Formats: sequence, structure tokens, C-alpha cells
Amino acid sequence: MDFKVENFEPKQKLGMHIVAEIYLDNPDVLNDEKRIVDALVDSAVYGNMTVINVSSHKFSPHGVTSLVLLSESHISIHTWPEYGYAAIDIFACGKGDPEKSLEKLKSLLPVKDLKVLKIDRGLF
Amino acid sequence: MDFKVENFEPKQKLGMHIVAEIYLDNPDVLNDEKRIVDALVDSAVYGNMTVINVSSHKFSPHGVTSLVLLSESHISIHTWPEYGYAAIDIFACGKGDPEKSLEKLKSLLPVKDLKVLKIDRGLF
Repeated sequence: MDFKVENFEPKQKLGMHIVAEIYLDNPDVLNDEKRIVDALVDSAVYGNMTVINVSSHKFSPHGVTSLVLLSESHISIHTWPEYGYAAIDIFACGKGDPEKSLEKLKSLLPVKDLKVLKIDRGLF
Repeated sequence: MDFKVENFEPKQKLGMHIVAEIYLDNPDVLNDEKRIVDALVDSAVYGNMTVINVSSHKFSPHGVTSLVLLSESHISIHTWPEYGYAAIDIFACGKGDPEKSLEKLKSLLPVKDLKVLKIDRGLF
């Protein structure tokens, strides 16, 4: 399912922001902080982006938040293993290709089902 | 200007994600990394959220990206001082109040004009 915001278009686009809700077949992955961080970093690189820093936290009893600071903006994930669900954002400006990053992320986790919203970001 | 995504509603809402495009009267603020980080942290606390970690980078020749990892999700900013513009995301679940955080941020930077999109995040 792909959605698009129709009335939020910038006059000058500076980046594309992908909002994705994902479900996984294997929810244990959503508690595996190293695997999640590695997947985000690999996805960023695959989408032609440069990683500057990773900030991550594993919650108790479950759930992971990872934020990847990029030259081209950021990728974030918040996981709810108890639902097999995670909330992802891929915000890319410049040479970054967030759609390629999302494709890579889908294969790495791997994603069973997802809902995607694309938002053009920039000057209004 | 406030926008809402009409067709992306989750069956079970787990958080609210505010996407905001902002303009400032004083674009120098958008190069002041410390002020930006302090404003994000203060806004998070004002919105009843708990800061776990801050990841920030000042770009050359201009621009700042700051990512605040929260118990309740995250706040991010990417600034373009050359346009007097910044892209903000406030994603809050649990007890977090992203609208209060945005109000605080508007006063701290301070914001001249903005465009806001609210997205309910969660299970579909």
C-alpha cells in the first residue's frame, strides 16, 4: 500500500521523507539491536547515503529505537516486537535515494507487509 | 497551516508523528548547534518526554542535523540556514505530547511561519 500526501507539497523540494509501517514474520528480529542497526546502515549506504553517526537504545522488556544521522538527513526505527511491528522513517535530501534504502531494508529484516507514505519536504 | 493525512490511519494508534516545515526570522539560529540541541531537549521535556541520547552534527559551510532519542520515540531537525528553513519531526508515543513540544520549540527558536502535518502511527 502506497500513500502520498496531496496537499503538503513544497514550492521547492529539498528532500523526500518516507514514512513506513512494517510487519515482520519473525518479531524476534525487532529485539535484535545489532541486526537492526546493521540493517539501517546497510540500507543507507545502498541508497547512496553517508552515515555520520548512529544513536541506538534497547528498551526493557522489549523494543529498540535506532537513529542514523546521515549527510543526507536521517533514518529512524522504533520497534514493537510484541506486535511484530516497527515504525520507520527515511528522510533523504541531496543524492540520497530513500526508495532504494527502503527496498534494501525490506530484504534485510525481512519485511512481510508494509504501508508507505511519501512526503516531499522543503520550502513552502 | 495544519494538514492531516486522511488515508493513513492505523487500526491501533501507537503514536503521533508531527512533521513541521518552519521558517525563522533569524536564520543564524539555524547554524547554532548548541541552541538547536538545547531547544529540542527543552521541547521534549516540556512535552512530557524523556531524553535518552542526543546525536548532532554541524555541516560545513552551514546547516545542522540533530536527532534526539527519547523514551517516547524521537525528535529530529535538519536546518538550511541559507533559506531560513528547517525540517522538524516529532514522533511521540506513550505519555509524550508532541503538540506541546512543538509549541515550546516555536517559542524557543523562535519560529516565524510553519506548516504542520500530523500522522497517526501504529498498526494497520
